[in-house]
Formats: sequence, C-alpha cells, structure tokens
Amino acid sequence: MKFTVTQITEKINGSIIGNSDIEITGPEQLEKANETQITFIGSKAYVKKWVDSKASVAIVDEKIEVEAIEGKAIIKVKNADLAMAKVLEMYEPEPPVFDNDIHPTAVVHETAKLGAGCKIGANSYIGKNVVLGNGVLVYPNVTIMDETTVGDGTVFWPNAVIREKTVIGAMCIFHSNCSIGSDGFGFRPAENGQGLVKVPQIGNVVIGNGVEIGSNSSIDRAKFSSTILGDGCKIDNQVQIGHNSVLGRSCIMAGASGLAGSVTLGDGVIIGGGARVKDHITVGSMVTIGANSGVMSNLEDGATVLGFPAANSRETLKLWAQLRKIGKGKLL
Amino acid sequence: MKFTVTQITEKINGSIIGNSDIEITGPEQLEKANETQITFIGSKAYVKKWVDSKASVAIVDEKIEVEAIEGKAIIKVKNADLAMAKVLEMYEPEPPVFDNDIHPTAVVHETAKLGAGCKIGANSYIGKNVVLGNGVLVYPNVTIMDETTVGDGTVFWPNAVIREKTVIGAMCIFHSNCSIGSDGFGFRPAENGQGLVKVPQIGNVVIGNGVEIGSNSSIDRAKFSSTILGDGCKIDNQVQIGHNSVLGRSCIMAGASGLAGSVTLGDGVIIGGGARVKDHITVGSMVTIGANSGVMSNLEDGATVLGFPAANSRETLKLWAQLRKIGKGKLL
Amino acid sequence: MKFTVTQITEKINGSIIGNSDIEITGPEQLEKANETQITFIGSKAYVKKWVDSKASVAIVDEKIEVEAIEGKAIIKVKNADLAMAKVLEMYEPEPPVFDNDIHPTAVVHETAKLGAGCKIGANSYIGKNVVLGNGVLVYPNVTIMDETTVGDGTVFWPNAVIREKTVIGAMCIFHSNCSIGSDGFGFRPAENGQGLVKVPQIGNVVIGNGVEIGSNSSIDRAKFSSTILGDGCKIDNQVQIGHNSVLGRSCIMAGASGLAGSVTLGDGVIIGGGARVKDHITVGSMVTIGANSGVMSNLEDGATVLGFPAANSRETLKLWAQLRKIGKGKLL
Repeated sequence: MKFTVTQITEKINGSIIGNSDIEITGPEQLEKANETQITFIGSKAYVKKWVDSKASVAIVDEKIEVEAIEGKAIIKVKNADLAMAKVLEMYEPEPPVFDNDIHPTAVVHETAKLGAGCKIGANSYIGKNVVLGNGVLVYPNVTIMDETTVGDGTVFWPNAVIREKTVIGAMCIFHSNCSIGSDGFGFRPAENGQGLVKVPQIGNVVIGNGVEIGSNSSIDRAKFSSTILGDGCKIDNQVQIGHNSVLGRSCIMAGASGLAGSVTLGDGVIIGGGARVKDHITVGSMVTIGANSGVMSNLEDGATVLGFPAANSRETLKLWAQLRKIGKGKLL
Repeated sequence: MKFTVTQITEKINGSIIGNSDIEITGPEQLEKANETQITFIGSKAYVKKWVDSKASVAIVDEKIEVEAIEGKAIIKVKNADLAMAKVLEMYEPEPPVFDNDIHPTAVVHETAKLGAGCKIGANSYIGKNVVLGNGVLVYPNVTIMDETTVGDGTVFWPNAVIREKTVIGAMCIFHSNCSIGSDGFGFRPAENGQGLVKVPQIGNVVIGNGVEIGSNSSIDRAKFSSTILGDGCKIDNQVQIGHNSVLGRSCIMAGASGLAGSVTLGDGVIIGGGARVKDHITVGSMVTIGANSGVMSNLEDGATVLGFPAANSRETLKLWAQLRKIGKGKLL
Repeated sequence: MKFTVTQITEKINGSIIGNSDIEITGPEQLEKANETQITFIGSKAYVKKWVDSKASVAIVDEKIEVEAIEGKAIIKVKNADLAMAKVLEMYEPEPPVFDNDIHPTAVVHETAKLGAGCKIGANSYIGKNVVLGNGVLVYPNVTIMDETTVGDGTVFWPNAVIREKTVIGAMCIFHSNCSIGSDGFGFRPAENGQGLVKVPQIGNVVIGNGVEIGSNSSIDRAKFSSTILGDGCKIDNQVQIGHNSVLGRSCIMAGASGLAGSVTLGDGVIIGGGARVKDHITVGSMVTIGANSGVMSNLEDGATVLGFPAANSRETLKLWAQLRKIGKGKLL
C-alpha cells in the first residue's frame, strides 16, 4: 500500500512545505521511521527528534514551529491528531480473511438465521434461534448462545462469548475474550440461615449501534429487565459493568474501570482507567470521572470528579497539593 | 410462562390489597412494565413512578405506604428484595438446551469418566482422566484439562478454562472466560544474575460445593499444596486470587477485587468491588472490606475496614470528612 | 516421583541435621504434610508448627533456630526460598501430554509453517502465514491469527488469543484467556459532531524472549508502530497494557496492574498489584511502584513510589501515618 505525499496532503487537508516525491509506505514513529515512511510532530518535544529522523516527511501541528531541513518535507495541519487518524485510515490493512463463509468446523444451529455475507470462523458456535444481520464477522472460537440477535456489520474477535438473549446493534465490535450477558452477581440468605442462595438473573443485555467492547471485559445480564449500553459507547479492556446498569449514548469507559450494579450513566460520560462507580449511583450527562477514582454519590450533568472518594476535581487537586506537604514533613 | 396474582401472592407469602385477576407474564421495572407484568416498590423513591406505571400489580415492602389506585393491586410483603428473588425463581427460564449429550465436535479424552446426564457442548475439550460427576453441564468452547475432578451438577459456561488437577465440588458455576488453575506468579533471580527464572507451580486449586466464579476471573494454582475456596464462596467478575490463598466458607468477593498470594480468609468475609488484599495477610471471619480498599495488615474477626491503606471504617469516614474540608479550602 | 533426603540435600546445597532415610514424595505445608513429604521453615512463625507437623524433614533457613526433634531431620540452607524453588523443580510434573502432534479437530491454515516438535491441541486455530518455531505447544481452544510469528519453545495455554501480525520470542508462556494484539483504544470526534469514530489501530505487538503473560491479561496492538515487551518481562493475571506502551527488559507487573497508552518503562521495573500508570508517562529503570498506586508523572531511574497520586514511598508512608491520626480523632 503506497500513497504519494500529495495524496496524503490532500486527504488530511494540509499544506506542504519543502519537497518530496517519495511514495510513502506507511506511518512510523520519528525514531524508527525510514525514508519511505511518514511521521508526526504533535508536540514541541518531538522537534529535536525530527532533525535526526530518517523519515522524509512529517505531519506537523500548525502551532509548532519546525525549521526547513534539506531534502525533507513537512505537511502543516490544523490538528495533527486528527490528521494522523486520517493517515491511519489510508493505510489500514484488510482484516484477516475467511477462506470459507462458514468454516467446516464451525457449529451453526439449524434454527439460526444468518444474513447475507456473514462469515463464521473455525470452531465457533452459533446457538439456537440466533439471528445475525448482514455482513456479521465471527472469528474463530467465538460462542454466541441461543436467541441472541445481532445487527449488520458487527464483528466478533476470537473467543468472545455472548450469552443467550443478548440484543446487539449494528457495526459493533467485540474484542477477544470479552464476556457479554453472564449472570449478574446476586444472592440471598438461605432460609435455614446457612449460606447464600443464587437469585436467578432472568434479564438480558441490550447493546446499541456502533458500540465497541474491549478484550476481557465483562457485561452482566440484568436480574430482570435489561443491562443497557446506548449507541456509540466505547468500552476498553478489563472493564466490568454490573447487572442492570444503563449507559446513555457515546459513553467512554477506559481500561479496568467498572460500574457496580444498577448504575445509570447519562450521555457522553467519560470514565478514566481504573475508576469505579458504586451500585445504584446516577451519573449525569457529560460527566468526567478521573482515572482511579471511586464514585460514591450521584453526580450532576457536566461534573468533573477525581479521587477516592471522588470529589470535584479542583478540590481534589487542592487536597492533593496539601497532602504532599504533609508527606514532605509538615506535621499536623 | 404465566402465573396468576394469587399464585404469586402465595409464593411470596404476601397479602394482596386491591384486585387483579390478570395473568402475569413476568417481572419488569416500573417505567417499562406493561399491564401483564409485575413490578416492585422497594423504596419510597419508587412510589411516584408507581402512579405512572402501566403495571397492574406491584410488590411493596410493608414499610412503604402506597395509596390504593383504581384498577391496580399491590402485594404487601415483609421483605421486597426477598419476595423479588422468589418471583424471579418462578419466572426463571430453562437454560440453553443441548441437542446432543455429547456434541460431535466436542473432544472427550478416552480416559475421561462422565457421570449420568452430563452434557458436553460444541468444540469443548475434556482431558485425560478427567472425572465429571452426574449432570455436569459443559457449554461450548470450554477446556477442562487432565486429571480434573468435578462434582455433581456443576455448570461451565462458554470458554471457561480449568487447568489440570483442579478439584471442583458439586453445584458450582463457572462463568465465561474464567481461568482456574493457571500457574501462580513466582520467579527467582537467575544464578548468573541475569533476569528471572520461573518457580514451578506444582500445586493445584481445590474448590468446594456451591461456589460461583464470575466471568474473566482468575484463580491461580498453588506453588505447592493448594489454593482453596471453601463451600459457598461467591466470586464476581474480573477477580484475581493469587496462588496459595485460602478462602473459608461463604466468602463474597465483588467485581475486580483481588487477593495477592498466600492470603487467608476466614468464613463469611465480604470484599467490596475493586478492593485488594496484600500477600500473606490473614483476614478473620465475618470481616467486611469496603470497595476500592487496600488491605495491608491482618484483620481480626468481625472487623469492618475501608480505604487505602484500609483502616477501621468509622475512622476512615472521619478522615474523609476532614480531608474534604482541606479540598474545600481549609489550609493546614 | 521420589527422591531421598540425601538427593534433595545435595540439590539445594544444604547441610543435614538429624537422620532420615525416608523417600520423599513431594513438598507440602507444615500443617498438611505427611511422613513422606518435605516441608519448609522460612520464618520463626513456623517453628512451632514444625513441632506438630507430621513431616519428617524440613528445609530451614540458616538464620532460624530449630531444636532437634527425635526422628525428624532438618536441612539447613542459606536461603529457604531459593531452596524451595529448587525442590519444586525436582518434583515438577510433566505438563499435560498431547495424544497427537496436531489434533484432528485443530485447524491449521495450509500456509502456516510449523517447526519440529510443535503440538497443536484440540479445536485450536492457527491462521494464514503463521510461523511457529520448534517445540511450540498450543493447548486446546487457542486462537493464533494470521501473520503471527512465534519463537522456539513458547507455550500457549487454553483459550489464549493472539491477534494478527504479533511477533513473539522464544520460551514465552501465555496463560489462559489472555488477549494479545487486540485493537488499541482510540477514537476521534465525528466530522458531524455526532459521536466518535474509531481510529484504525494498524500497528502490532512485539514480545521478546522468556516473557510470561498471565490469565485474562490484555496487551493491545499499537495505533501504528509496535507495543513492545522486552526480554524476560513477567506479567501477572488481569493486567492491561495499552497501545504503544514499551517495556524494557525483565519488568514485573503484578496482578491487575495496568499501563494506559504510550507508557515507557525502563529495565527491571516492578509494578505492584492493582497499580496503574497514566498515559504517555516515562518510568526509568529499576523503579518500584507500590501496590494500588496511581502514577501520574515521570519517574527517574531507581525511584520507589507509592500511593495515589504516587509519590516517594517514604513520604507516602509518613503521610499515611499522619492521616491515621486524623482518622483516630485529631482534628485539623
């Protein structure tokens, strides 16, 4: 896959300074790039590395000053991050191909309905009455249990598990070893006072369109009714979402964050890595929860919180500055 | 599956107020319920929603006052949570069925012994000398390695992995993508001072009766001897239990909590979500560890701790109240 | 597997006190050991248990005084932990065997190249153009996607997933349900302002020699270029490593720790359980990060940090001591 510098410049709506007629084979970091690769200068820290880089072309944020270097070109853009995303789209390789529409070792229940262009990989299992839309891709060793429905163009990477009666929208992505629709975590004391009895978890999981779920993440089915993820939610790896939680549209949950049971998120909520929200909490729209925070009370729309227990971010930063003084020897 | 209001009332030992002869098709939340569904009023906050709910019957905790509404009935109970659990038991659907006792694509080693009524799903693997009790259910893509023994009625959901020589009791549940019996995490410095050498992990995992293990949880085998989970332990998703840890009876570990190696828990310990216990710590019986806590010292029977480092919960709450003042501007 | 006390004493370079000609069948804890098992006294706390133990031989650290007991022998060693590791090596059982080199249910793409002595377990999948070195072991239900290369002697435990174009060294171990090479977590705002668009993740993961990856851990592929783990890195369970992170040689990451995207670690970094490092942070060589810490700034070589936000360990311990006073009632 090769593109000329001119083609790239057009695609990212940039302006070229210097000259280069080399065909570019792909993007690479400044330190590693060779002459046929394009690189990025997204902050001042990288300008020095650019001088030593073997790359002959760099995309540069227009806020950054870079002197002309003999034999090297730069492409100035308004937003280097966005330009980089566009370049990655140009060089995105084809995903792994399927040699067969349905691999001979895949097990597709006779009652399952597959749309046009579905591909089912080796040793995967599609259960009873499952309905897959058009162009659904199921890589090897995936398990999709009974009565689940899936929208068009959704992709399941290897060893993902979808339990029975899950409802999944179009254009979703499920990464390896994620677990969707396992039983919620609920028990009641036994009548005889000896130990705990499982509370049946008879609900399901409902996932909107354009949702992405990371590797090894777990989303539990509802006790009754549904655990719900709105359209466009992006969930990273190692995330846990407890039963009966409800996420609005386009919520982002970074790695290893978690929602205990019955948490409600508005739209556009951003949750940092490792942060956790207590059960039955309601979080408003456009809330930002800092990494590693522990949220223990409801949050209004637009709140920005940090810390454990999570509080207004400014207050937490002020607190941390004071605490650092104690650590450095200021006695109470 | 339909039950009359009278049947439900009897089952939950409640007293009905108002009239309803509708057949109920299942439970649903107040906002979503239709006329044929039963709903729950477990706290005062829900009373207002009940007025607008389309549901014609609600189970109500006897501590909550609800006015009579024309055409709607309520069932008063002593404990709405317990009543709800009982209703879920009434409406619990059959689990996914197996079309075959042993699916033709399952691989069962010729030396494995399966009890009466075992079901082995598509593309699962049962290793050498594995012994399964009666009525064990193995859903698709599960792997149970050599010499493992499993008690009656235990269930393995898709893509669960049980490594060799694990001992599992009766009536346990293993959720998707859990990993039982992987090597403990142990290394020693190499003789030549260059890097680390793996310490063999030659022990196993022993799990009692009635234990439930959540999705994507990991329980490591012992360095030698056994990592042990007592009867009735309930382990949520994304939990990690390090090698040689020993849990007593009916311990509860919520999502993403963890025990480093060689932790000992008494009976009835409750560990909140995201909380972690340091290696070689001993935690007494009936201890409660709050969510997101980090336990770094031994805990006596009945202790209730919170925070990082974890301390007596009352002291931690007092500390947090004081810290909040600093965040709000009170200077030290 | 049996060894005489003399054989064990030679292997661990110890000196025997007392007499025992019993053949030893394996190691066991003091409380559980029978007469044919060897046990360990690694700290004073265990001396009392030794008196009551049924074991007839114990390995004892030379710093610990143990009185002679009639009919029991002790083996004095300089380092009981190291001696124990050596004994475990003596008694390490054979790993589960493969009845076939390539199980009939395994799917190996016709373009894949397998070295001498490779074993492929039941229902595993080896993709297009995958290259496996000599003696690679692939247990059941593993998925290795297209264009991946693997060095000699590497082992994949059940249900591990390796995504396409991953580069893996020799003598590595991948535990159950780990996910290597899934897409990094990257999105950009949509042009129309409605939601998020996925940024293609066209890089890969490169793993050195002698690396071990725990159960249910996730290592994401790079946005472009590579996510890199140096030789000898040891990664525990439930760990997350974000896209474009680079680890030096022999780094240790304990259970449920995590690196957000583009983190750089030097050599010999030790990260405690549950600790997390913010994106784009650089951590020097030989740094130690305490359990449950949250690192939010760059760290110099040799630093030892603790807490959230992570600070110099001594300062954090001093801070914690002061905070405990507040919890106990000292008002600010």
